[in-house]
Amino acid sequence: FIFPLCSDSQVDLSVMRHGAFAHSHVKKLLSNAPVESVVRVTGIVSSRPPGQENPKMPTGDIEVKAETAEILNSCKKLPFEIKDFIKKSEALRMQYRYLDLRSFQLQYNLRLRSHIVMRMREYLCNLHGFVDVETPTLFKRTPGGAKEFLVPSREAGKFYSLPQSPQQFKQLLMVGGLDRYFQVARCYRDEGSRPDRQPEFTQIDIEMSFVDQAGIQRLIEGLLQYCWPEERGPIVTPFPSMTYKEALADYGTDKPDTRFGMKIVDISDFLRRLDIQFVQNALSYPHGTVKAICIPQGVVSGALHTCSALGNLRLESADLLEAAGLVLRDPTAFHFLWVVDFPLFLPKEENPTELESAHHPFTAPHPSDTSLLYSDPTKARSQHYDLVLNGSEVGGGSIRIHSAEQQRFVLEKVLKEDSEVLSHLLEALEFGAPPHGGIALGLDRLISLIVDAPSIRDVIAFPKSFRGRDLMGNAPDYVTPEELEPYHIQVSWPLAERGKEKL
Amino acid sequence: FIFPLCSDSQVDLSVMRHGAFAHSHVKKLLSNAPVESVVRVTGIVSSRPPGQENPKMPTGDIEVKAETAEILNSCKKLPFEIKDFIKKSEALRMQYRYLDLRSFQLQYNLRLRSHIVMRMREYLCNLHGFVDVETPTLFKRTPGGAKEFLVPSREAGKFYSLPQSPQQFKQLLMVGGLDRYFQVARCYRDEGSRPDRQPEFTQIDIEMSFVDQAGIQRLIEGLLQYCWPEERGPIVTPFPSMTYKEALADYGTDKPDTRFGMKIVDISDFLRRLDIQFVQNALSYPHGTVKAICIPQGVVSGALHTCSALGNLRLESADLLEAAGLVLRDPTAFHFLWVVDFPLFLPKEENPTELESAHHPFTAPHPSDTSLLYSDPTKARSQHYDLVLNGSEVGGGSIRIHSAEQQRFVLEKVLKEDSEVLSHLLEALEFGAPPHGGIALGLDRLISLIVDAPSIRDVIAFPKSFRGRDLMGNAPDYVTPEELEPYHIQVSWPLAERGKEKL
Repeated sequence: FIFPLCSDSQVDLSVMRHGAFAHSHVKKLLSNAPVESVVRVTGIVSSRPPGQENPKMPTGDIEVKAETAEILNSCKKLPFEIKDFIKKSEALRMQYRYLDLRSFQLQYNLRLRSHIVMRMREYLCNLHGFVDVETPTLFKRTPGGAKEFLVPSREAGKFYSLPQSPQQFKQLLMVGGLDRYFQVARCYRDEGSRPDRQPEFTQIDIEMSFVDQAGIQRLIEGLLQYCWPEERGPIVTPFPSMTYKEALADYGTDKPDTRFGMKIVDISDFLRRLDIQFVQNALSYPHGTVKAICIPQGVVSGALHTCSALGNLRLESADLLEAAGLVLRDPTAFHFLWVVDFPLFLPKEENPTELESAHHPFTAPHPSDTSLLYSDPTKARSQHYDLVLNGSEVGGGSIRIHSAEQQRFVLEKVLKEDSEVLSHLLEALEFGAPPHGGIALGLDRLISLIVDAPSIRDVIAFPKSFRGRDLMGNAPDYVTPEELEPYHIQVSWPLAERGKEKL
Repeated sequence: FIFPLCSDSQVDLSVMRHGAFAHSHVKKLLSNAPVESVVRVTGIVSSRPPGQENPKMPTGDIEVKAETAEILNSCKKLPFEIKDFIKKSEALRMQYRYLDLRSFQLQYNLRLRSHIVMRMREYLCNLHGFVDVETPTLFKRTPGGAKEFLVPSREAGKFYSLPQSPQQFKQLLMVGGLDRYFQVARCYRDEGSRPDRQPEFTQIDIEMSFVDQAGIQRLIEGLLQYCWPEERGPIVTPFPSMTYKEALADYGTDKPDTRFGMKIVDISDFLRRLDIQFVQNALSYPHGTVKAICIPQGVVSGALHTCSALGNLRLESADLLEAAGLVLRDPTAFHFLWVVDFPLFLPKEENPTELESAHHPFTAPHPSDTSLLYSDPTKARSQHYDLVLNGSEVGGGSIRIHSAEQQRFVLEKVLKEDSEVLSHLLEALEFGAPPHGGIALGLDRLISLIVDAPSIRDVIAFPKSFRGRDLMGNAPDYVTPEELEPYHIQVSWPLAERGKEKL
């Protein structure tokens, strides 16, 4: 009548998922029950006999002397075994997500995520007086918001949109005197099919009045230190800082993985002395340089083309070296890095004579470059800062423009945009808006790096496939023309799919 | 050079919104600055001279001996004075929401809301081991989900929908072994124009495995006690409980305001003795009764028609009596009440021979009525429970069906619905789903009752108008046909609005 406890339930020791054996009639009932059935066992809890304890189990010190057993819900044949080491196809895992969630790894990831977010809230609310404010997700298109989902309203032709971030609302909260705002905010981005992106994602969204760049950086360092899981070892603050220019020059990217060296080195001076024709040609161009990265074990890889290509080469070399058994990027090491002094504007890809914001139009210019904003905006640096962890961008923010004139100048004169659609924000700045700034941390990415998950899907309870589909519930799905009627829309079927409307 | 502190900023004592006076050049600068400008004052903080302290201000014990002052951002002419006692039109308040947010009342409401939610999280996460899990808001239509917003996808004819609650996901989490789930969940409901409803709202969403009705009720009582603001006085637990039948009989509603009496009384027996023809006629019908409510000060109001009309009459009488100066419903009293034993099904309004779920199809039958579910479902009571506060429903939940067969019977045999669209949930129940139940609290309504706000708009930072419009940012708004193209939809303009597509 003795039943060794192997429950994964924290609720009721007498209720457990079946996966072990017992004695007598209890044993018979349980050995006939399919694996993963839910059973209720009543009996006396006692210590296990000396030597039979299992320190690997939370309940390994005790057992139940079972008296009765009852199957509360039996389990039909599983599509896959619920063991972490069993390989399953991604599509099958997604279709039976509720079974995959029973795996040790997903239970750990989701419980740790909840714990980390709770610690963040304690730090922000209880220690630093931040106010958790919910902002709307039914809003309207922002200029250039090509990646925003639309939501038809009952007014013909009018649509809400699902915002990519609470940016406008958090700035308006600063104008409204809620001077320390945060929100664990659901954000939306429609990028079609992209690997390891999700149409909805979560960011830790923060905004403060009367703060400078260093103020936000120290706050975030304290936040991460406070919520950091003990089992991942301590993190050291303040985080190192690097300018955008340095990052590009040394690593060929604005999000360098600083866990390993292999920096980009300028070898122009050395090569200038050698008589190699194609090298001499390259060096004869204005700003012509030759750069290289030094790869351990004696190989040198050089390049005449751009730094970003060399940055990719650096990461690809690291992949190759690691495939050959050399550990360059320790998955247990966490290298945080601030990247600062970004340019305020960049030439548009499709038309380089026009400028676009390097981040967004509300970013304030660097204090030393305010006059450049008006005289030569291409040269102005911004007060934007990115937080990089092991080569991934996990956060970004800026000090914002709080002067209505400056904001209007940026929108109308530099970006040549119609500022009418932002008139509410421009007007708000005229009513004594305090200086302010903030940051947003990408929660899904951050947690996936902490738990060393291969994809952000592994830290989201019900993720979508890379095509944006829910393979479990089958979303998105067809709706009837009658259901579209209140929203005054109809489907424009592509030629190849005509006839589907009749299904 | 002495500047009495009147800052509403918690960040930097030297930065404040202008509304007071100082001396000399500082005084000149500040007295010229428009009201509500943001100024930076530097100087020495010291105690106020004895007798000049202002205990009504958080900074009333100190002052700044000002040395310099600078206007950081000046404020243009305000559309209304930012004083709580100044009446403003609702439309103006909504248009300039960021100014209205500076009022004492909205600051208080939003900061208290944040505080209460934080306490709820501490209770659930830290004290009771709940896991905060985020569930998707881009999902698909549920059967009968006529009030769900649609989100067009890039696949022609396919739409996501914004769910009215995470109901399906939280049940799937129970199947997935996350046995104590909660979420402060954003929910969506498209009801067109309805007073004091919002298209997006927030609920405290909770689900547990291996729990019964009493278990959920005790958890919620503890939760409310733990997060209850001290200044509102203590609340007493356990909350009283009343059956649906009693509530209807005594108060004519399933959400009785128990702060005052005036219960409905059956006076049929008394009237049967009197020779009043129309009364005798009414009593001669099967189940014919005459009921009345006793109104203080000697007036008795009676009714032959339904109890719910008498319930309305009771509330209208209370309005009249309060208008005449009698206080019946003390706004500082908080009367919580559980209403239980609801019917499982109700006849459809449009066709009373068919049944629909009184709440939702996942509700389990009352343990004593399980056999009635199969023999006479109209008589079966459910394990649904509502939480009522001062006559408003602030929460509702149930123990759910965990047997796939029972769930299929309810959907197919009782409700006569196509269960295909819920096939993922039905299948999930077959894989050893634990018995489970939960509840959702309407956060906006709950907070508005706690702060005695006339509308839930007063506890939401950026609410929509009753027509679902954002009057500040002007959402929803028109979009171009090009913006609709990736979603394969076009606007079907009503006849009266043809031509708008060319604007």
